[in-house]
Amino acid sequence: MTSSQAETPRAVLLLSCPDARGIVAEVSHFIYTYNGNIIHSSQHDDEQSSTFFMRIEWDISDFTLPAEKIRAAFEPIAIKFEMSYTLEFSDQVPRLAVFVSRQDHCLFDLLLRNKEGEIGGEIALIVSNHRDHENVAEWFGIPFYHFPVTKETKPEVEREQIDLLRRESIDLVVLARYMQILSGQFVEAFPKRIINIHHSFLPAFVGAKPYHQAFERGVKIIGATSHYVTENLDQGPIIEQDVTRVSHRDSVEDMVQKGKNLEKVVLARAVRLHVEHRVLAYRNKTVVFE
Amino acid sequence: MTSSQAETPRAVLLLSCPDARGIVAEVSHFIYTYNGNIIHSSQHDDEQSSTFFMRIEWDISDFTLPAEKIRAAFEPIAIKFEMSYTLEFSDQVPRLAVFVSRQDHCLFDLLLRNKEGEIGGEIALIVSNHRDHENVAEWFGIPFYHFPVTKETKPEVEREQIDLLRRESIDLVVLARYMQILSGQFVEAFPKRIINIHHSFLPAFVGAKPYHQAFERGVKIIGATSHYVTENLDQGPIIEQDVTRVSHRDSVEDMVQKGKNLEKVVLARAVRLHVEHRVLAYRNKTVVFE
Amino acid sequence: MTSSQAETPRAVLLLSCPDARGIVAEVSHFIYTYNGNIIHSSQHDDEQSSTFFMRIEWDISDFTLPAEKIRAAFEPIAIKFEMSYTLEFSDQVPRLAVFVSRQDHCLFDLLLRNKEGEIGGEIALIVSNHRDHENVAEWFGIPFYHFPVTKETKPEVEREQIDLLRRESIDLVVLARYMQILSGQFVEAFPKRIINIHHSFLPAFVGAKPYHQAFERGVKIIGATSHYVTENLDQGPIIEQDVTRVSHRDSVEDMVQKGKNLEKVVLARAVRLHVEHRVLAYRNKTVVFE
Amino acid sequence: MTSSQAETPRAVLLLSCPDARGIVAEVSHFIYTYNGNIIHSSQHDDEQSSTFFMRIEWDISDFTLPAEKIRAAFEPIAIKFEMSYTLEFSDQVPRLAVFVSRQDHCLFDLLLRNKEGEIGGEIALIVSNHRDHENVAEWFGIPFYHFPVTKETKPEVEREQIDLLRRESIDLVVLARYMQILSGQFVEAFPKRIINIHHSFLPAFVGAKPYHQAFERGVKIIGATSHYVTENLDQGPIIEQDVTRVSHRDSVEDMVQKGKNLEKVVLARAVRLHVEHRVLAYRNKTVVFE
Repeated sequence: MTSSQAETPRAVLLLSCPDARGIVAEVSHFIYTYNGNIIHSSQHDDEQSSTFFMRIEWDISDFTLPAEKIRAAFEPIAIKFEMSYTLEFSDQVPRLAVFVSRQDHCLFDLLLRNKEGEIGGEIALIVSNHRDHENVAEWFGIPFYHFPVTKETKPEVEREQIDLLRRESIDLVVLARYMQILSGQFVEAFPKRIINIHHSFLPAFVGAKPYHQAFERGVKIIGATSHYVTENLDQGPIIEQDVTRVSHRDSVEDMVQKGKNLEKVVLARAVRLHVEHRVLAYRNKTVVFE
Repeated sequence: MTSSQAETPRAVLLLSCPDARGIVAEVSHFIYTYNGNIIHSSQHDDEQSSTFFMRIEWDISDFTLPAEKIRAAFEPIAIKFEMSYTLEFSDQVPRLAVFVSRQDHCLFDLLLRNKEGEIGGEIALIVSNHRDHENVAEWFGIPFYHFPVTKETKPEVEREQIDLLRRESIDLVVLARYMQILSGQFVEAFPKRIINIHHSFLPAFVGAKPYHQAFERGVKIIGATSHYVTENLDQGPIIEQDVTRVSHRDSVEDMVQKGKNLEKVVLARAVRLHVEHRVLAYRNKTVVFE
Repeated sequence: MTSSQAETPRAVLLLSCPDARGIVAEVSHFIYTYNGNIIHSSQHDDEQSSTFFMRIEWDISDFTLPAEKIRAAFEPIAIKFEMSYTLEFSDQVPRLAVFVSRQDHCLFDLLLRNKEGEIGGEIALIVSNHRDHENVAEWFGIPFYHFPVTKETKPEVEREQIDLLRRESIDLVVLARYMQILSGQFVEAFPKRIINIHHSFLPAFVGAKPYHQAFERGVKIIGATSHYVTENLDQGPIIEQDVTRVSHRDSVEDMVQKGKNLEKVVLARAVRLHVEHRVLAYRNKTVVFE
Repeated sequence: MTSSQAETPRAVLLLSCPDARGIVAEVSHFIYTYNGNIIHSSQHDDEQSSTFFMRIEWDISDFTLPAEKIRAAFEPIAIKFEMSYTLEFSDQVPRLAVFVSRQDHCLFDLLLRNKEGEIGGEIALIVSNHRDHENVAEWFGIPFYHFPVTKETKPEVEREQIDLLRRESIDLVVLARYMQILSGQFVEAFPKRIINIHHSFLPAFVGAKPYHQAFERGVKIIGATSHYVTENLDQGPIIEQDVTRVSHRDSVEDMVQKGKNLEKVVLARAVRLHVEHRVLAYRNKTVVFE
């Protein structure tokens, strides 16, 4: 939970490797050796692929190794077990870019939750293909970048956006109902670092106008899905989903309205999980350590 | 709700017709004229197709028209508004046939809920392509019919089943995880009177092994869907759906286990709604008056 | 649903009376006589008290009686059945006053949902015992009134507030986490027209610091409750409730955070239901026609 | 999850102790030393009381220490960290006694889930103060004990019941809507080993007839709570809760019906969690490692 994380400086190690004996013992011994206090620890075995996943968070207040030397000290363990891993510190605040088009419900929701501390990280900038929400950005004191996009200018615009995101050291791109499909070049520039909100319960109703599709099919429940963006539209690893009931009384417009509430909540949860280093994507799925 | 329906004899009128003024006034006036007391009344306008739907339930304890004459007396109103309608009486108990294969969780659930009065109607017979649950039928005192099915014998078996269902005056066929696909001839013999439970959140994961499909896609929520059976597999009008959370920790087997609980509940709700004359199917959707 | 209400002018009749035959017939006949088109109609019988409740909404585009004469024309029916009733028109926008203290999550939520049209009515003014959210009011262009309150000044302050609310023709007072207990004089001035959000699943955890109480008791689910304010603290008729899961991992602060999301949603639903004339309070309960 | 546990023999260590550094390191090193493979590991810090909780489950297929010697080998670690702990093995099947009165919905549900393997353990016997369900016990092949209870005979009956439970080596007593309040002597004989289902969302509606209380208060949600039984009625540590929506349309009887479904599910979950050694009770709360 966010609230307690603020209290003391923490390190978070997020790793995956082929399953083997002794991983937990070695990792926890490493932390103990340098006088760390484990706060949370979760693990998962994927039996299909014999892969081991772990998230371990420890208090580094009294750690006898300075933060910048931890990685090197841990490296032998990582090599021994063939680990892929990330090591993050609670005093390094992730920088977020929020992409938005005309609808502002997800944008407002992220800004307010970030302001209240429910979602960590720093919303460093807002990007839009329209000027509609420039005043919202201004009110929250966040730089706003307007990039009009046409079919012709899109490749060039994307290059400029990538430059901006790199210049601003953006760690995570949040597509908060951004109505442009990102090209492969963009997606490759930020692998597993772009989160989208799709307004359906994927894999039902892929593509455009999912609420219209749901209305036509006569479903009794609608959903929203947040996922990492990959080159295949709406096919990336799912981070979070949620649903709400509808009935024959709900018109398409009613579904859109109910769906907005879902989209906000589901996107906010996914962003929080990513920012707190709780998500590991592998084989087009996610392991989420809550 | 079931509980109060038992108290006094009731009539239930379920109708649809082109939208027009005065329908509620005429129907309620009709009931009032013969001294009926309206207990529940619900209506719905489908704006797309300008269709009006209504369910009206009234106490006929003091009705001055005998039950068998109500239909004739109502006919002029039905003709005037071009209504399709059914008229049912609470003392006519619908007769149900439950079709089952090897899995017994839905069968047990229906039998127990029926015994407790949560689902009305009389479970008149159980049909299975296996003998596994003959003793369950026996214990509940319900006739059990064993119809082994092979590709070759299927047309003949279905004809025998249709004969049996007609002979036994079955009003509703419930496919309680019956693992045979019914042919067009069977479906046509019981239009909008066959309810199936599909073990996914339709339209996601149509067809075989939906939990395996869900596992592969890495969804965070799984579902179950009850629907009227039509000739197109898993495409019929949806009556009820529900969902439950899963995570990376859930294996396919775990999903199957969690799904069983969903399947039971969703099928039971759909059967109850149908038996209480609360469902109107139109244009491959349902209007459900709860 | 909100969306369709905007389309054509509507009247909404919300009534209760002793149960009797012919009520639906007479009311629907009345509407038909003057060429109204019934859009929604719901009813309820409370069997305990033999009380009949009804909400009926009709299109008055082609009504042959002008709006200001409907009440007089309906009066004989109301007298005949001893009805209590309200008659509202969709072109009369209810005026809301939002009371707030230091926490702004419910305030922001109401303002944004109102802006998006999800909650109807006009937020005519914001009242607070603190100046913290004056800039929020300003940004949304809503008059802000600061009333500092002390134990000594409270009676006088409440009189001023009542004057303000009357002068501004306020129809509904929304206590959006307003941390002052209103006196009997205030409550009596706006009977069934003050909605509060209590941050627990009432009747569990009445009074102060409900999340602390919930934490101490070790509950696995926390809730929020919106209710009409009566003279008895947290005892008024409940309009809406919702809950969310917690676990041993959640500190009091985590519960407060999760609770904020509940409070927003539950208060918003209650306000919407009231503004759309869907709530009838009787005997310290509510009938809610959704 | 149950399904995978059956595959290989497992040990489960469930412990609590004062918080300290090195606990995870020592415990995981202990398991690694004897060639165990950790399958699941969860931990929790209660910051209020500085208490550490842990559940660790490992595959003992290739463990180099025989099961009966593990306890002695682990003892030094337990002493060092002042641990309270239990050590269980998957091949030791817990023995359950189900107590029931007239209502059979929870009894049937437990029997069926146990038969399907969803709830582990062996239902070794059924106790009732009525003979109603003797045939159910017989059908499932489980010994049935009839203990009629009157105010006068209760102390003597309880002594006989305690004797029976001890003779049969019962590990867990499940009160499946058993309508007798157990005395202090009974409760003390099975500390933290009696699970009850209370038909309300505790702490709301303690005591008798909670659905009547809920109906009178006009709540919009009802619940069920499973908890360990202590000497104070309905005050023991909560293991699991769940809720469902009700409305003004629901009579007390409807709430009872809806509640039955909740009671079944909530009790089943609590029993499963206990049987899988996932629950630690402390300070009148529970830590539940799911």
